[in-house]
Amino acid sequence: MNLFYQPEIRNGILNLDAEESRHAVRVLRMKEGGAIELTDGNGYFYSATITFANPKKCEFEIVGKRNVPKRDFEIHIAMAPTKNMDRMEWFVEKATEIGIDEITFLLTKNSERKAINLDRIKKIATSALKQSQQAWLPIINTIIPFKDILTASSNQKFIAYVDASNPKHLQALAEKAKSYLVLIGPEGDFSKEELSMALQYGFEKVSLGTNRLRTETASIVAVHTLRLVNQPPMNTILI
Amino acid sequence: MNLFYQPEIRNGILNLDAEESRHAVRVLRMKEGGAIELTDGNGYFYSATITFANPKKCEFEIVGKRNVPKRDFEIHIAMAPTKNMDRMEWFVEKATEIGIDEITFLLTKNSERKAINLDRIKKIATSALKQSQQAWLPIINTIIPFKDILTASSNQKFIAYVDASNPKHLQALAEKAKSYLVLIGPEGDFSKEELSMALQYGFEKVSLGTNRLRTETASIVAVHTLRLVNQPPMNTILI
Repeated sequence: MNLFYQPEIRNGILNLDAEESRHAVRVLRMKEGGAIELTDGNGYFYSATITFANPKKCEFEIVGKRNVPKRDFEIHIAMAPTKNMDRMEWFVEKATEIGIDEITFLLTKNSERKAINLDRIKKIATSALKQSQQAWLPIINTIIPFKDILTASSNQKFIAYVDASNPKHLQALAEKAKSYLVLIGPEGDFSKEELSMALQYGFEKVSLGTNRLRTETASIVAVHTLRLVNQPPMNTILI
Repeated sequence: MNLFYQPEIRNGILNLDAEESRHAVRVLRMKEGGAIELTDGNGYFYSATITFANPKKCEFEIVGKRNVPKRDFEIHIAMAPTKNMDRMEWFVEKATEIGIDEITFLLTKNSERKAINLDRIKKIATSALKQSQQAWLPIINTIIPFKDILTASSNQKFIAYVDASNPKHLQALAEKAKSYLVLIGPEGDFSKEELSMALQYGFEKVSLGTNRLRTETASIVAVHTLRLVNQPPMNTILI
């Protein structure tokens, strides 16, 4: 079933945006009285009925709502954006499907890309949220200097970095039910100076496995490792 | 460092193919006497010296070789190809980076795509193998009818399928150091008939988590889950 997105329902905005209005009315041919499901990306699913099937501004009224509690762990990935935007967008889509809470882009010494199109990235996250039928949209922050991430408050702070000191795997170091921040470097990795700054600020060096992974692959591996650390053996059915 | 690929070294083929020859000689400007590293995708890394820097057929001589033993587990994913080829190619790239042994494409009742470009997919796997500096290229099989996968011989055979019976997570069911086969369905999932056939042939139903994942995301999650089940807490440095 299609899930629509309207973050401002709590502020009384009871219509779809132009793109979703067109999709609902022109593509899905929905009419007045038709039932739709929405999320506000902030923990709520809504059941609604279309009251005005306008393809530019489709209006609805709420007939029910349901809260999805936040999980007892939080995953925040701070990564150097890849040179190729597609790879970064792919990461955002997959991380949102698998489940992530926050993404920050980092300007590092070896970053090849210094600017990102945040609107486009947020759109991709919203689309993945709807596709995977979730109620919590990840927070996506703009690009910040590396040093600004160092003071972030998370229970467990990691920097992915493999060197001769042979760090432990993220799976071995992450504890259940914590908030995690993992820093993922650019193609040329973090500089020695960036690494030592992170260690000074209480970050722990971790490995993500023995293979040399691209930035976006390392990021997705980090997200999924933290999901599995918190995975109950038996699934609860959410929907 | 660049890693080149020549699967026929053992059969005495001591030159790069046209594409890699061009890359070595034109792009990297390598000359006679230059050192290169190669893999045959079949467990060996080779050190070689360029003997003829021809941009169409760059020749080399072997000066050393090193065997990488096979891992003690094997991952085989059999998936319905996605409608959008990009998504499937992305899966092949990422699965190869993370580490996979065999990929098979399935013709299922709800498959939207009935044909694949195997050459292109194999190229993507080779490129990911070189990028991630590995020595074992996954086997990539062409598309086969669903029923033909049922008799495959693996220690543990799973079918990803979430229904009211609420199956256990793959992480909970997979045992260490086995050969695994995981079936991943198309967008409309496997049919009830396909599911019941798989169960008859000894496949176990598994969940990959609570979120609704796209085919290619489910496939990558399955690969990485099986990697983590087999992950030693401390990494050994391979290279």
